[in-house]
Amino acid sequence: MAVYTDIRDDQLEAWLDRYDLGGLHAFKGIAEGVENSNFLLTTDNGSFILTLYEKRVDPADLPFFLGLMEHLAARGINCPRPVRMRSGAFLGSLAGRPAAVVTYLDGVSVRRPSPAHCRQVGDALAAMHLAGEDFTLARTNALSLQGWRPLFEKSGTRADEIEIGLADLITDELDHLETCWPSGLPAGVIHADLFRDNVFFLKDELSGIFDFYFACNDLFAYDVAICMNAWCFEPDWSFNVTKARALLEGYSARRPLSAEEFNALPVLCRGSALRFLLTRLYDWLNVPPGALVTPHDPREYLAKLRFHQGITDAGAYGLDLADNSVSGEAD
Amino acid sequence: MAVYTDIRDDQLEAWLDRYDLGGLHAFKGIAEGVENSNFLLTTDNGSFILTLYEKRVDPADLPFFLGLMEHLAARGINCPRPVRMRSGAFLGSLAGRPAAVVTYLDGVSVRRPSPAHCRQVGDALAAMHLAGEDFTLARTNALSLQGWRPLFEKSGTRADEIEIGLADLITDELDHLETCWPSGLPAGVIHADLFRDNVFFLKDELSGIFDFYFACNDLFAYDVAICMNAWCFEPDWSFNVTKARALLEGYSARRPLSAEEFNALPVLCRGSALRFLLTRLYDWLNVPPGALVTPHDPREYLAKLRFHQGITDAGAYGLDLADNSVSGEAD
Repeated sequence: MAVYTDIRDDQLEAWLDRYDLGGLHAFKGIAEGVENSNFLLTTDNGSFILTLYEKRVDPADLPFFLGLMEHLAARGINCPRPVRMRSGAFLGSLAGRPAAVVTYLDGVSVRRPSPAHCRQVGDALAAMHLAGEDFTLARTNALSLQGWRPLFEKSGTRADEIEIGLADLITDELDHLETCWPSGLPAGVIHADLFRDNVFFLKDELSGIFDFYFACNDLFAYDVAICMNAWCFEPDWSFNVTKARALLEGYSARRPLSAEEFNALPVLCRGSALRFLLTRLYDWLNVPPGALVTPHDPREYLAKLRFHQGITDAGAYGLDLADNSVSGEAD
Repeated sequence: MAVYTDIRDDQLEAWLDRYDLGGLHAFKGIAEGVENSNFLLTTDNGSFILTLYEKRVDPADLPFFLGLMEHLAARGINCPRPVRMRSGAFLGSLAGRPAAVVTYLDGVSVRRPSPAHCRQVGDALAAMHLAGEDFTLARTNALSLQGWRPLFEKSGTRADEIEIGLADLITDELDHLETCWPSGLPAGVIHADLFRDNVFFLKDELSGIFDFYFACNDLFAYDVAICMNAWCFEPDWSFNVTKARALLEGYSARRPLSAEEFNALPVLCRGSALRFLLTRLYDWLNVPPGALVTPHDPREYLAKLRFHQGITDAGAYGLDLADNSVSGEAD
């Protein structure tokens, strides 16, 4: 959690001159987001977030990310809405970085989600999937199946520095997933990173979702699997089936999962666990000198992968698809 | 700029239960302050700053700092006001650290102050000195004359790693200051760290002063000297006499400097420059592994010290004391 880029007064002033935001009341760097520098900007018109996109974000992807946020916000999704400059643009350059201003969301993230939180996350994810269906831009998921083997090769046998045998385990898992990864399931724009840090609640009601900087086109059910891994495990890495059931019910009530999607969940959860295991493994083995961010422990996602390797029937995730398909409110 | 301590949901909830702040709207770590962890807290009742005091602050000093802020705020100084808990206390323990909530100040700090900004800083400093006169707690300035030699000894000859001859220069300066440091000048509670980062402006009007965590009892004119060093040098470390004149006029209009105080300014400016040179030198030579903060360049204050070593007459700071004493608005 850090601010990577400093903004001078004169740079900020020139930047604000491009907008109709009124007079400046406050400007504070905020310790939120691992990839970018974020500033809380308060003006006559309210509160906003100014984001400077640091080097891990490809500027070529920004029109997709910002366009998606505008598209979703216009369809009633509670997410940050990019603010257009007087020129009509929502992307500019500030302190040498691509930069944008988005509306501010009230709320706090939860670190110990309850089943009720998980149910709302499922609902919000389904709402986002539906709202994104007529979005016209597309972005390939570089971190889906075809990206995992090249990503793994960057760590390779060094994986065994985390745990002896990990490199073999990952190789076997890649072999397995490449043979059984589902095709033909419903796809569209997915969030792909709807972790607890990226969802706000106000008095236990979900108040917004944000950080769309991994959003891409992929299987909707894969996004569900990412959320199951992010929301339904306890701090000791054990699986909470009550939370999983709540998340799946919340999702299905708004966008019912087909039998094919439901049955694919174990393999999608394995894939999702592997995806985060691989990026965390790489980050863990390659901490840059002077890094401001402590890397996540890759073993968390290894534990999740092992859990899903033991699941043969999606019913183990707590939802009875037949009941749910009928009412969406099965209990 | 960083947040050092993470606060869990349940810790925050239990903490807020001790206050009458209403429901929680937002909670964000902010990249402000080098010594402590600060969080922007928004509730039904408005915005507040929650500070966790990290190890560089002595908990025994906190009643002085927080009591002073309450005292000054009650006398109309625009500074953060500690918020009392239901119990009446304004200091508690959160995530293993002393912690307090203070009111939020609107405004932004300026990095390139104008003479008009400097005039307002002088005025605000004088107002603070006057408002603090009936504050009943006291705190010795550990970073005044008697503290400098022991502080220097922690760096010693390693000073020459910054510049050959620096250790000798500091030793000579200590010898000089110990013989001519003024006594008997008006004293009271001073801010002792009123740098640009600790003053907010709104549309070029000073809107508040904060960060009282170096406040102590010492000579008022020494606080003026600290501000001259912090506000009246350009980014290339050259002295801007127009800004110094404005700062001194702003101060004197509210609290006229006596002839003794005025004439002591060159030695007080040397002392202030040495004080920040010594702490920056120590920090520069002792960056802890994994530090989140880049230390300030000690040579900045070496340049300032050298400038003041060349001043024999306080008139060189741009103010004609005789004029000022009469009108407070000399121009």
